[in-house]
Amino acid sequence: MPHINVDENLPGIRALMAFSPQTAEPMSKLANLLLRNNKEGLGMADSELIVSYVSYLNNCFYCHQSHGAIAACYLEGNNELVDQVKKDYESAEISEKLKALLAIAGSVQKGGKHVTSEQIEKARKLGATDKDIHDTVLIAAAFCMFNRYVDGLAAYTPDDLLTYELRAKQVAEKGYGNYIYTEKQPA
Amino acid sequence: MPHINVDENLPGIRALMAFSPQTAEPMSKLANLLLRNNKEGLGMADSELIVSYVSYLNNCFYCHQSHGAIAACYLEGNNELVDQVKKDYESAEISEKLKALLAIAGSVQKGGKHVTSEQIEKARKLGATDKDIHDTVLIAAAFCMFNRYVDGLAAYTPDDLLTYELRAKQVAEKGYGNYIYTEKQPA
Repeated sequence: MPHINVDENLPGIRALMAFSPQTAEPMSKLANLLLRNNKEGLGMADSELIVSYVSYLNNCFYCHQSHGAIAACYLEGNNELVDQVKKDYESAEISEKLKALLAIAGSVQKGGKHVTSEQIEKARKLGATDKDIHDTVLIAAAFCMFNRYVDGLAAYTPDDLLTYELRAKQVAEKGYGNYIYTEKQPA
Repeated sequence: MPHINVDENLPGIRALMAFSPQTAEPMSKLANLLLRNNKEGLGMADSELIVSYVSYLNNCFYCHQSHGAIAACYLEGNNELVDQVKKDYESAEISEKLKALLAIAGSVQKGGKHVTSEQIEKARKLGATDKDIHDTVLIAAAFCMFNRYVDGLAAYTPDDLLTYELRAKQVAEKGYGNYIYTEKQPA
């Protein structure tokens, strides 16, 4: 049961954002900027894989399921790859550049000072730009916020994995518009 | 030295926000909503004490010095109280309600699932509303992001404590307007 009185018909962060629409607005905007409208930066699939991995490390079931399902939408339904990235990305069939960025994201999850110059150099040698590195750190940091917001208030977390798949399709199509957190969402 | 090529004349998060003004905008807005324009919620001093405490736990020197100095501005320059809250809030001369909220914030810093129903009940008995609890969790979660953003990119951190005091006075007066992160700030 959530720690505060929120709409019990809304799962996860959507109930919290309906409780506090004022703060939901910039939070949704940040998610959209990092994960959807980032045309010069990381692709949407890679960004969502970073989110799923960090959320998995933070043990946030709602977020790693949600964003894992969204990543799978961008990867032709390849849920196995998404799971592999969460559990052991080194052995996953992804680019070496993304592996280097996931290493940085994993360090950010532990704490900012865990990121090393060696990790940064390695990512750079594999083609990462300053913007890629900046965005990886900020995506990982932002989900250390989102994950704690969801679990710190004990938001309702559906067990049924189908829920996440259905929602993922909506997000993959329409993005993290603020509307998705309110009752005013399209049918 | 910062991990990416940022303006070396700007300290801490200000250099990162100048590097990425698009993401800086919602991040600044969130900080303002939580720490400045939250008239029905926690007071500005209490909010900044929560930020300083969480940033101290995250070992983010730039953030705990910055926000500690801002808290002190709201507390008639009482730096000793700010330090006491960071190091051992149970023995500090603050309200029992704020102590209960700091306990929640400390749990959020470790991870969302560390927050217990007992902590929430205790805060409620001491007068905390749903909004106070929501805002405490979100403030603590947001600074798990800001702290990681600053240290994850190895942003320049001034050693001179006077720098933080001077900046704190500006923020105490004018808030976290986006302008403070750019060159367009007022003199």
